[in-house]
Amino acid sequence: MATPLILDGKAAAKAIRAELARRVAELVAGGVKPGLRILLAGNDPASQVYVSSKVKASAGTGVSAVVERLPESASLDDVARIVESWNRDPLVHGFIVQLPLPRGIDPLAVLKLISPAKDVDGLSPASLGALASGRPGFTPATPTGIIELLLRNGITISGRRVVIVGRGELVGKPLANMLLLRGERGDATVTVCHTRTRDLGAACRTAEILVVAAGRARLITGEMVSEGVVVVDAGTNSVDGHLVGDVDFETVAPRASAITPVPGGVGPMTVAMLLANTVKAAEQRIGAAN
Amino acid sequence: MATPLILDGKAAAKAIRAELARRVAELVAGGVKPGLRILLAGNDPASQVYVSSKVKASAGTGVSAVVERLPESASLDDVARIVESWNRDPLVHGFIVQLPLPRGIDPLAVLKLISPAKDVDGLSPASLGALASGRPGFTPATPTGIIELLLRNGITISGRRVVIVGRGELVGKPLANMLLLRGERGDATVTVCHTRTRDLGAACRTAEILVVAAGRARLITGEMVSEGVVVVDAGTNSVDGHLVGDVDFETVAPRASAITPVPGGVGPMTVAMLLANTVKAAEQRIGAAN
Repeated sequence: MATPLILDGKAAAKAIRAELARRVAELVAGGVKPGLRILLAGNDPASQVYVSSKVKASAGTGVSAVVERLPESASLDDVARIVESWNRDPLVHGFIVQLPLPRGIDPLAVLKLISPAKDVDGLSPASLGALASGRPGFTPATPTGIIELLLRNGITISGRRVVIVGRGELVGKPLANMLLLRGERGDATVTVCHTRTRDLGAACRTAEILVVAAGRARLITGEMVSEGVVVVDAGTNSVDGHLVGDVDFETVAPRASAITPVPGGVGPMTVAMLLANTVKAAEQRIGAAN
Repeated sequence: MATPLILDGKAAAKAIRAELARRVAELVAGGVKPGLRILLAGNDPASQVYVSSKVKASAGTGVSAVVERLPESASLDDVARIVESWNRDPLVHGFIVQLPLPRGIDPLAVLKLISPAKDVDGLSPASLGALASGRPGFTPATPTGIIELLLRNGITISGRRVVIVGRGELVGKPLANMLLLRGERGDATVTVCHTRTRDLGAACRTAEILVVAAGRARLITGEMVSEGVVVVDAGTNSVDGHLVGDVDFETVAPRASAITPVPGGVGPMTVAMLLANTVKAAEQRIGAAN
């Protein structure tokens, strides 16, 4: 195929933010301002960028996003104290703890503390357990954003062969579980590949939809995909100061029927889903109070 | 291939029970008798059989298994009261709630109440969440038994293409998550198929190891598998009063390099893993107390 459909995450995220702004306006009219908190501990340079993009994106929606910073020297206790205060604070509808945490703080020990009702990143064991039990609460932002991006571009998921490259806890594994749920957002036949997969190319060539979240720049090249494949690239690798995906766009795009750009594909969708979860959390709180 | 290796779950389970009996003897010498409780609510005929096989299997190991019955008319409150008393009871090291529950009792509402330290069936959202987070506590009995049966028969899992037919919460989905963990019990390339999979045969023919947990008698027939495949049949269907697997043994076995019988394959392993988890729970309690 000559020109694949570009799965424009920036445009889709903008549309979602506009929809959210309308829902926030209704909440505000009812006296509720959706509140998002972000805990940023340490100096990871990528985290600084991600957090500021989250704050920036919130602005247009009316969600009130506030960042709390802790130094690289922060302890588990310091983090736990903040998490627990947010669990209790009625003005906080949802919050996230930006990963990675400083060395020496076990992320799972922190994620365990997050109240499921405020876990807008969907990464706590309780949220992932609900997903594995087939009844998702908040689902993780990146896989949710990938599904949303496909559906908004008219791409059918149900019944398709989806191959996921990467078995991480943030994208690959939760996405696999989500795509196995019943309904139009799931019902896919799902294969998960990773570093131990023999002949990755052969596995990828079986895909009708290929999602790559491996964390290796340009891992997937043209000869590894079949003609007409839909390609979603969740990679964010820094190469010579440039953001580069896990897919070699130049050789893969000519064979694809649709493909995400990097940047401007999955990234903006991740941020939009975080805001969508925050608005949903605020709406649910009101629902619970009534 | 003419004669496949029969993956004898009965023999493997017997060996496991003998190993457990030695560990239980040590526990008893230290003054601890591992205690398992089984809640059996209602009159499901298959459940009666499963529960009695669990009790019977416990006898040889020294695990003390006690069944508590509730009538078909039991409420969620009745079940919850028992679960909560077992959560507190120091003589109960592990317990299970036999599924299905009577109509009208939401199983998830019950599973949520089970303390992860006593969840020897590994089916509570907390246990499944730990698994999805990559740090399993107790893992579900059937998928654990399948992995154990393969390894005890010298079958390599790591790096192999495993196809799972069935996306249920008891077998298919947790098995997929377990096979994606790192190490020799995982590291597989995993595909999950189900009722919405188009061309199930084509998917199954890609398998080096095929695990079927679809709940449909003789769904998989000879022409749907490749020569030399390892076949694990987790199906337990009742056909004309006989226990029949999801695999058509007659046509599949001649093509397989190894295959489980039904009965005598996965079933006994499930029971053995439940007992193994109970002994582990008792050992961990002592470890925590010291």
